[in-house]
Amino acid sequence: MHRVQVTEIAGVMTLGPQATRHLHVLRLQPGERVQVFDGRGGQGEAVLLDLLPGEGRATLELQPDALGTVRGAETPQPVTLAVALLKGDKLADVVRAATELGAASIQLLLTQHAEAREIGAQKLQRLRRIASEAARQSERSVTPGVLEPVKLGAYQWNGTLLVAHPGSSTLLTDLLTWDAPLTVLSGPEGGLSGAEMQDLLAQGAKAVTLGPRILRAETAPLAMLGAIAATGY
Amino acid sequence: MHRVQVTEIAGVMTLGPQATRHLHVLRLQPGERVQVFDGRGGQGEAVLLDLLPGEGRATLELQPDALGTVRGAETPQPVTLAVALLKGDKLADVVRAATELGAASIQLLLTQHAEAREIGAQKLQRLRRIASEAARQSERSVTPGVLEPVKLGAYQWNGTLLVAHPGSSTLLTDLLTWDAPLTVLSGPEGGLSGAEMQDLLAQGAKAVTLGPRILRAETAPLAMLGAIAATGY
Repeated sequence: MHRVQVTEIAGVMTLGPQATRHLHVLRLQPGERVQVFDGRGGQGEAVLLDLLPGEGRATLELQPDALGTVRGAETPQPVTLAVALLKGDKLADVVRAATELGAASIQLLLTQHAEAREIGAQKLQRLRRIASEAARQSERSVTPGVLEPVKLGAYQWNGTLLVAHPGSSTLLTDLLTWDAPLTVLSGPEGGLSGAEMQDLLAQGAKAVTLGPRILRAETAPLAMLGAIAATGY
Repeated sequence: MHRVQVTEIAGVMTLGPQATRHLHVLRLQPGERVQVFDGRGGQGEAVLLDLLPGEGRATLELQPDALGTVRGAETPQPVTLAVALLKGDKLADVVRAATELGAASIQLLLTQHAEAREIGAQKLQRLRRIASEAARQSERSVTPGVLEPVKLGAYQWNGTLLVAHPGSSTLLTDLLTWDAPLTVLSGPEGGLSGAEMQDLLAQGAKAVTLGPRILRAETAPLAMLGAIAATGY
């Protein structure tokens, strides 16, 4: 069954131009059933009442027998990926794969050695669309938010923070207890500075290994999230 | 120190046009030291004797005090990534990240549901160049071979084979004993067929989980290799 993201799960849902276009591309006809999800854990089944592609409007009616908050595909505690701004289009790939691998939100970071110093509104918007699309494709009921960059020095996290660090021999899986929200953090192309790393550790972050090789900035976050996914969550 | 791949570690090493161009781009001058590696675990330090970019030829002299077979960045047993042919340029990203994450070789597979049915000689050559470049950048002494596709039904592996399978609840890390060579296998866009999966299991392969979400064909291999890297190897 096709999946459509809606603003809110409700008895009758009116969709805007983008979602309507998506239904149109899928060649759905009035009367057909789709899955709807709100990106915050709510989902259900709905029937397409009408589809007006010219007007960019579609209406769905919720089937009351098939409503539920399904978190089957979500981790026991939310996992945030905190990732430095990266050059070019690399963040698009990171956001896409991080969404598949279960990140509940993606916090962009401004760091000392980053080659990218800012992100434009359009690019941020595009990352959010990518997260939404990846959530749909991987059949998640939660769409990760992609949050405006903050300076690493001012970043406040909740729960446990694990940071990929070449020198560490601590294993990520040894620190994965699911008793608090989890953040995995990875740096920019130039790595985190020594001062940034010390600051994080002083605030209680734990450094973890990703093996003895040098990973690119776009590979490290996926290795961390892949390691979590491989524990079954 | 810059790293240069050579055909064979020897007292005097003559480089061909491609490696010479690389040295030229790095603006290396005769007398400067570089690291040399042969892609099979041998490496050492050498001094650039001469560099003739017009002729595409450079000569390096090995420094006998700095020769060694260094496997510090390699896994205790070789890890093979066996991966189905994928559409478009997806294999390039997989090969690049798999090399960073420690794969010792990459075996391409022909599978039932694959959308890509073959790979051209040029494309295969390009994947090999990507593996070589990624090995250099991640400071590995082994360059993974990218092996011509074989039919999954005829594929013979050595040691342990772990295959990503949505239905499994077995953890990859529980099967990671390093007492034999390891192969991690992942399917094409359409997944492995039921018959293919049964055949693999009948031959002793183990199915492992990568969490409850649907992963794209290009993400699953990286999640498996990332999970291994996160164990410190």
